Amino acid sequence: MLALPPALTELIHRLTRLPGVGPKAAERMALKLLGWTPEQVGALAEALRDATARVSHCPQCGCLSQDGTQCAVCADPSRDGRTLCVVETALDAIALERGGGYQGRYHVLGGALSPLRGVLPDDLRIGQLLARVAADGVTEVIVATNASPDGEATALYLKQVLEEAGAGSPDGQDAERPRITRLARGLPSGGQLDYADAATLASALEHRTRL
Amino acid sequence: MLALPPALTELIHRLTRLPGVGPKAAERMALKLLGWTPEQVGALAEALRDATARVSHCPQCGCLSQDGTQCAVCADPSRDGRTLCVVETALDAIALERGGGYQGRYHVLGGALSPLRGVLPDDLRIGQLLARVAADGVTEVIVATNASPDGEATALYLKQVLEEAGAGSPDGQDAERPRITRLARGLPSGGQLDYADAATLASALEHRTRL
Repeated sequence: MLALPPALTELIHRLTRLPGVGPKAAERMALKLLGWTPEQVGALAEALRDATARVSHCPQCGCLSQDGTQCAVCADPSRDGRTLCVVETALDAIALERGGGYQGRYHVLGGALSPLRGVLPDDLRIGQLLARVAADGVTEVIVATNASPDGEATALYLKQVLEEAGAGSPDGQDAERPRITRLARGLPSGGQLDYADAATLASALEHRTRL
Repeated sequence: MLALPPALTELIHRLTRLPGVGPKAAERMALKLLGWTPEQVGALAEALRDATARVSHCPQCGCLSQDGTQCAVCADPSRDGRTLCVVETALDAIALERGGGYQGRYHVLGGALSPLRGVLPDDLRIGQLLARVAADGVTEVIVATNASPDGEATALYLKQVLEEAGAGSPDGQDAERPRITRLARGLPSGGQLDYADAATLASALEHRTRL
């Protein structure tokens, strides 16, 4: 086995810590990096330090922001603060924004309930959510947790605590209270019926809409 | 579209320059990096600068080394300097070393001949190869270029210039001159016949060995 230069071995080792980067990919990256100019390498190293030091979470919604300020959505006065979309992570908000069309604001929980992994209600930003719903004149809370078991359990828990806090109208009567909604389930865009799983098809049938 | 914090956008942009890293993977890496401790980030940034500043090419064979010194193979007195394995890149030498078993030394050409892409003999370390073959009492030159059109053309060109320089025995008579050999062609280890391409199977048949 050829002993690689120690500095290169160290770099490969560090790169394998990145998500989706195995030893082979790390080696290829490291060897490619050897061909970069010092300026390019310096810029990457600086970007690494800069991003990790400066990127923070929005104090209001928990989305990503910089230097402890509000995030771009909360700072935008044209976004509708009466609609809150509750997501598990900041990444989910980014995905929803990419879809475009949503004009409300977000609330990042910081994960999903998972008693087996020790994630309990107190570990999520649920108290802050209730405070926002109570204070902001919110008319709708969209629960956009993942369609996974943990996400589903979190959605049901949120429905319960939101109702206890005065949101939702369990009997469909009280139009004054904030509505609690969830994302639609169905066939994904571009999806093929014969590749869809049974649960997806069942949801798509149950929630069919008029053509 | 959610405006990401500028420092994060910059990091994602820099990461997409790495081989095999698209915008999606870069985003995932960047968000993962936000969770690293400052020490971990600092170690990666430091490894980047350190590797690119210190890793160099062995002045003798062209393999990777550190701080301008000889590489691990050239510095190892137990390696047989009479056998030279000629490879296109330092990466190829690393791959051969991983296979183990080779006890000779290497010579990195720095690429393969490719007139269309402007790579001519003078762009490769062919002069240094001829000098080593002449000076080192070399008994065998293993041409281990890739089995690609460019690699094949390079191998034929090397055979020609090595013979002109006094290596090889075109008529099979002169046993004193260094032998010129090439890597075997055949079925890869673990390979299945019905997945092998025609050229591979033809080589495997032509160069069949006694069982």
